[in-house]
Amino acid sequence: MVAQTPPMGWNSWDCYGAAVTEDTVRRNAEYMAQILKPYGWEYIVVDIQWAQPTAVNHSYEPFSDMTMDAFGRLTPAVNRFPSAADGAGFKPLADFIHSLGLKFGIHIMRGMPRMAAHRHLPIEGSPYFCHTAADPNSICAWNPDMYGLRCELPEARAYYESIFRLYAQWGVDFIKCDDIAREYPRCRREIEVISEACRASGRDMVLSLSPGPAPLEQAEHLKRYANMWRITDDFWDDWRLLKGMFERAEKWCVHAAPGHWPDADMLPVGALRQCENPEDRTRFTPAEQRTMMTLWAMMRSPMMIGAEMTKNDDFTVSLLTNRDVLDILRESSHGHPLRTTEDESVWAAPRTDGTGLYIALFNLSGRKRTVAAEPELPDNVLPAVRELWSGHTLRASRVIRASLPAHDAAVFLLTWNR
Amino acid sequence: MVAQTPPMGWNSWDCYGAAVTEDTVRRNAEYMAQILKPYGWEYIVVDIQWAQPTAVNHSYEPFSDMTMDAFGRLTPAVNRFPSAADGAGFKPLADFIHSLGLKFGIHIMRGMPRMAAHRHLPIEGSPYFCHTAADPNSICAWNPDMYGLRCELPEARAYYESIFRLYAQWGVDFIKCDDIAREYPRCRREIEVISEACRASGRDMVLSLSPGPAPLEQAEHLKRYANMWRITDDFWDDWRLLKGMFERAEKWCVHAAPGHWPDADMLPVGALRQCENPEDRTRFTPAEQRTMMTLWAMMRSPMMIGAEMTKNDDFTVSLLTNRDVLDILRESSHGHPLRTTEDESVWAAPRTDGTGLYIALFNLSGRKRTVAAEPELPDNVLPAVRELWSGHTLRASRVIRASLPAHDAAVFLLTWNR
Amino acid sequence: MVAQTPPMGWNSWDCYGAAVTEDTVRRNAEYMAQILKPYGWEYIVVDIQWAQPTAVNHSYEPFSDMTMDAFGRLTPAVNRFPSAADGAGFKPLADFIHSLGLKFGIHIMRGMPRMAAHRHLPIEGSPYFCHTAADPNSICAWNPDMYGLRCELPEARAYYESIFRLYAQWGVDFIKCDDIAREYPRCRREIEVISEACRASGRDMVLSLSPGPAPLEQAEHLKRYANMWRITDDFWDDWRLLKGMFERAEKWCVHAAPGHWPDADMLPVGALRQCENPEDRTRFTPAEQRTMMTLWAMMRSPMMIGAEMTKNDDFTVSLLTNRDVLDILRESSHGHPLRTTEDESVWAAPRTDGTGLYIALFNLSGRKRTVAAEPELPDNVLPAVRELWSGHTLRASRVIRASLPAHDAAVFLLTWNR
Amino acid sequence: MVAQTPPMGWNSWDCYGAAVTEDTVRRNAEYMAQILKPYGWEYIVVDIQWAQPTAVNHSYEPFSDMTMDAFGRLTPAVNRFPSAADGAGFKPLADFIHSLGLKFGIHIMRGMPRMAAHRHLPIEGSPYFCHTAADPNSICAWNPDMYGLRCELPEARAYYESIFRLYAQWGVDFIKCDDIAREYPRCRREIEVISEACRASGRDMVLSLSPGPAPLEQAEHLKRYANMWRITDDFWDDWRLLKGMFERAEKWCVHAAPGHWPDADMLPVGALRQCENPEDRTRFTPAEQRTMMTLWAMMRSPMMIGAEMTKNDDFTVSLLTNRDVLDILRESSHGHPLRTTEDESVWAAPRTDGTGLYIALFNLSGRKRTVAAEPELPDNVLPAVRELWSGHTLRASRVIRASLPAHDAAVFLLTWNR
Repeated sequence: MVAQTPPMGWNSWDCYGAAVTEDTVRRNAEYMAQILKPYGWEYIVVDIQWAQPTAVNHSYEPFSDMTMDAFGRLTPAVNRFPSAADGAGFKPLADFIHSLGLKFGIHIMRGMPRMAAHRHLPIEGSPYFCHTAADPNSICAWNPDMYGLRCELPEARAYYESIFRLYAQWGVDFIKCDDIAREYPRCRREIEVISEACRASGRDMVLSLSPGPAPLEQAEHLKRYANMWRITDDFWDDWRLLKGMFERAEKWCVHAAPGHWPDADMLPVGALRQCENPEDRTRFTPAEQRTMMTLWAMMRSPMMIGAEMTKNDDFTVSLLTNRDVLDILRESSHGHPLRTTEDESVWAAPRTDGTGLYIALFNLSGRKRTVAAEPELPDNVLPAVRELWSGHTLRASRVIRASLPAHDAAVFLLTWNR
Repeated sequence: MVAQTPPMGWNSWDCYGAAVTEDTVRRNAEYMAQILKPYGWEYIVVDIQWAQPTAVNHSYEPFSDMTMDAFGRLTPAVNRFPSAADGAGFKPLADFIHSLGLKFGIHIMRGMPRMAAHRHLPIEGSPYFCHTAADPNSICAWNPDMYGLRCELPEARAYYESIFRLYAQWGVDFIKCDDIAREYPRCRREIEVISEACRASGRDMVLSLSPGPAPLEQAEHLKRYANMWRITDDFWDDWRLLKGMFERAEKWCVHAAPGHWPDADMLPVGALRQCENPEDRTRFTPAEQRTMMTLWAMMRSPMMIGAEMTKNDDFTVSLLTNRDVLDILRESSHGHPLRTTEDESVWAAPRTDGTGLYIALFNLSGRKRTVAAEPELPDNVLPAVRELWSGHTLRASRVIRASLPAHDAAVFLLTWNR
Repeated sequence: MVAQTPPMGWNSWDCYGAAVTEDTVRRNAEYMAQILKPYGWEYIVVDIQWAQPTAVNHSYEPFSDMTMDAFGRLTPAVNRFPSAADGAGFKPLADFIHSLGLKFGIHIMRGMPRMAAHRHLPIEGSPYFCHTAADPNSICAWNPDMYGLRCELPEARAYYESIFRLYAQWGVDFIKCDDIAREYPRCRREIEVISEACRASGRDMVLSLSPGPAPLEQAEHLKRYANMWRITDDFWDDWRLLKGMFERAEKWCVHAAPGHWPDADMLPVGALRQCENPEDRTRFTPAEQRTMMTLWAMMRSPMMIGAEMTKNDDFTVSLLTNRDVLDILRESSHGHPLRTTEDESVWAAPRTDGTGLYIALFNLSGRKRTVAAEPELPDNVLPAVRELWSGHTLRASRVIRASLPAHDAAVFLLTWNR
Repeated sequence: MVAQTPPMGWNSWDCYGAAVTEDTVRRNAEYMAQILKPYGWEYIVVDIQWAQPTAVNHSYEPFSDMTMDAFGRLTPAVNRFPSAADGAGFKPLADFIHSLGLKFGIHIMRGMPRMAAHRHLPIEGSPYFCHTAADPNSICAWNPDMYGLRCELPEARAYYESIFRLYAQWGVDFIKCDDIAREYPRCRREIEVISEACRASGRDMVLSLSPGPAPLEQAEHLKRYANMWRITDDFWDDWRLLKGMFERAEKWCVHAAPGHWPDADMLPVGALRQCENPEDRTRFTPAEQRTMMTLWAMMRSPMMIGAEMTKNDDFTVSLLTNRDVLDILRESSHGHPLRTTEDESVWAAPRTDGTGLYIALFNLSGRKRTVAAEPELPDNVLPAVRELWSGHTLRASRVIRASLPAHDAAVFLLTWNR
């Protein structure tokens, strides 16, 4: 039973794009184990192109020679992941991460390498061949490497089972499957086959679907076949994207529950885009980062850190280690907006145990603004109020109010005796 | 401060269409005062065409002679509402209803009678004339009587203020304004002017907008300018319509809160369509009626009874007087579906005071079916469980399960000590 | 058998809008009889709002009091058309125009005056009443006066027959029916009923449908029920509209034939918009006017002069009296574009009698440009070539070429011995 | 200057699909030279998959091994085209066809073989490589072999020039380029580059674009860059497709002229689908075949015979050797429909030399029907009339009329002295 609360971890994409290396992964895993693990952070995820020896940044190289085994299954490029030598795959790296008390994840694209089909390779553990499983017309719009599979055929299931078998052997705990979450209706069956192959592996792995926006009308299908799925296109450190998330969060929030979480995408905090510029850091202001963390918490989105974590500054650490805010992920349910306008948003989320109510106030405007809310409370109670970013206890009141700088947020826990 | 909980009452449309009379209204008001008032039912609403002397059923008569005053304000047809004689309007009827401890509502169409414009009548309390306020191109697609107003002009505001002044004098407590809720964007401004004219009257009146579906993307505008608004087209006693309501309820549920309620429309229970056939009764099965009442309660929709209530049978009375179920309207918040498929739906709603959680199980399929849910509860608690339609207390459990006949529903209250 | 060649005439809209008077009509009719009639010009058409006493310019007045007879048939406003006094209607004016050897036309809106329905007037020559023929939901998007009719009912046919009976009595030769040509599919039946009522009158009247764009896919319906129909929205003296006409002309040209003509709308030449400014004249350059006349001729569009003709200058007269160019309307068939690009267009049209080929060259660009064409000709012939605007005979050649100023056109007649 | 009249020839697709062989081509070429050449038939075109050794019918095999040279240019599969051995390509076959006095054509797909890109082959005559010219995301929706090219790069032009250089060396006269005519806007630039590479080869080759429907709004682009282009999806021997062609023919007819011809697709007459069943013959009735030939002639569509011609029966031969009907292709211009309804259609086309007018009458209904037309003729002439399928001379008349069996057509030549 995976993903009983929203998964929390780190992913290599925002800081290293297609060019992440084993050194980087180990360094960040050690950091997480030492600094963040006590707050609930646990997944270390290697993102896209780990089988491409020549990747150098966030772009994709057409017709590159991907490393793969004799069955058309991608394997880590040994020049980038030395421990994968001699056919070891990701097992040594996974073992290392497990030794730190963390969990290990990898990115995959739906389908198989195009060359596996053109070379007519056999499918491991089956009487089939890759070229009968592959669909020559099913390609990704933004990545040149793969063919999707003909999921109506047993060959396709055999191929997907062969890769999840390999990932289970490696010790993988988390799969970010790409080119699929927004590809309804044509990939609907492919999602089912991938999900079933994942479960058939016998190993608990979180199944995360990208990229978004996944279609809202497919919510029940996604809840059944995936543990998390992206609700928007790629999210980066741009205020317009963050502001836009409020609308999607409102539509998706009722679908968050143990085992299946709408995913607002990675947290672009700290040091980013390191291949392009080692000095680069998030363009979000501290206020905007509070807004992001608060919204992700109230909607109970998974949280995946995008930073090169070893370069975290004090603010970034404070953001990622506020236990009261991160508790919202685990202790609330039924969170939803009370209202969202051009200028402000108010969210409310009861504590699951009935002991209180979280209220988040967001200033979405470009100037200082007082935001207020009068949430539904039992008649005649006067709740105690604490703001969770500052830790301050406020005067008991049924009206919650905050004067907020541009793009900033506050989040309160209201409690009362019943 | 009206509509702090979802309004509950009776409306004449389902049983008498365009042909309701004063006798009928008084008879039903007396019934409500005696039988239903203790359970929270309070509004008595006269629906469409009360100014048309010749209305006989659910249809509209083009180019009929509506009764109106010298200022182009519709007045009750005296042949149908005798107490309105001598210019008394609805005041005597409102007084009677108030004397029963109930509240009085009327239906209006947006705009003014077409003949008020063609006759160039003056607008009461203003220097303006009707023909400059009316928009000759703004008509209703399904009713022939009115012109919408040119809401960018002060003439339009003057006309709307003149009618709400009259309604306040009559003692009206509830306005069902029609031909407007789904007319975005062209009626966006008209909604604002109507809402402001209503408030400017100085009398508390619930403002209810019809018909649906109101557009979801206008949720914040509706929440600001109306107390309730229809989320679907007309709802009748047809299973397909009831099943379809689950999708709209899912999308709208996060917008229900004190002062503004997404409205799933009237409850077609008991004796209906009396002009066409005095023997006619709801085509919903008892199971379907439980499903309807449960869904309306969990989403906190307003509830307006469609029956000729004096013909209520025992089952109908039991449905309308289950205090535990009706309490969900007033005591829960944050209700939303956990899942909805072709065959079943599960909704959850915390009690606002933190003492428990409502769980509703719906069998949407055409055959008997066991529906189960494992809601989010605090770790380690084993809740007490009671089913509210039967009143039965069940074994304490974290898994809620019911074997349900086709189209039936059960609703549970889970409580625990914290 | 009307409209065997494209109708040619004058219409009051471009110069007087809704405010044309009898004096104006008579003055322009006299001008046409003296100056233009020898070139084929023959229709004098009174455009919209002749029943509105208060019209002063191109705009429409909501809820105005239209003049009508006891049967809800509009009659000329006597203050504007004095000869219509004493119930004479347009008969005296029609008689006058006939006395000049010309033909008389009027504008109508589809439907009946709104007040005819609200007043429950009888329908002449029938047992019916206006309010059962009118459709209260069928209104015009841009004019406030009328209701469309419920054309599935005999009442509607009776009303339309009653008005065409009146027009036949008046001596009307041409009906411009408005608010209908682009109103497919909802007015499809109304077009049929109007057309049949027109024919049932027993008098030959050209039936012209407005406004455009009529839908191309309804070409066969239009060809069957109308003599001409607008292919674009209102055309005025604006180069972008003229340039845009080339695309519509290309699509419609194959549907031009005796009895039914795609209509490119009025010719805004000479003195226009006289109510607003008596000094106003066309904003088209002489080159653009040649382009317009040439395109209308090659596509065989009806030609309706928009000018206050008594203010025609020499250039305008030359444009309207070039017999060679106007002959294209009557002597060619099968005209169509050979090509049309952003910068130029070439049209070709054989003479119906087989004696030659018309070639039109258009410079659609904003600068001087040489346009050339090598049309399909019989093998081995070397045609004689004459340019029709200048009258110049050119060197015999199979390649036609012209150096044209911006927006200008040339048109050639090629002839050969066979 | 190619395609001065609509190209006429034979294509292997309808009879042999993807599996045509050299023997078949030679046999049909010999037949054409002996029987059909005098009537204007001249092209022999080898359709799709000539580079695939394993093709057996009308279907495509994913990930097959196409034969290609060291530069990624497809070459004929030697097992199917023996004369192509030793790198001779199609030259020996082209030489043979030329020796018969005929012209030789081949089918190509836009783009390059996928394996040419994956293998990083060099581009002949350039410093470039295939994998930089290919676009990994540009694939065909229905054929698995190729990648489209990145036409904004010089590499793409270099590749296209390399293949047209080869085709010129082979002696190719006609290129049917597939997966392109309906692919606007994304293939707009690719059409230009292919057209320019074709012209740059120095050899006259007809450029034919498939499949349809090409978009009507791209008519001028198509006229500039291609000699013929398909106006519908694949046409087969199905009455619904033939009836549907009337609508497309009406829209496209004005764009037919020397050098560029809207293409109604192959003529499925005689023996078809020979790989599937050597006994298979066209499902069109003789009447339907007359209708097809008449429409193709009147709209001046290219004509490509789909039959295994050596199995032609007498009727098929009569259809393909009616010189009077085929003359319409060469001697008429400005053909267009006079009207087309559900039940009938009438087309008219003047003879280019001015000596007469062709009139075609079509019965599109399922029962016998008399179709009549009164075409535009010079005043006062009484034309001589001859029906071209029967050869019968009829009584002189201005009204043309025929009693036609279901789905049949008649076509007349009207002549007069001027």
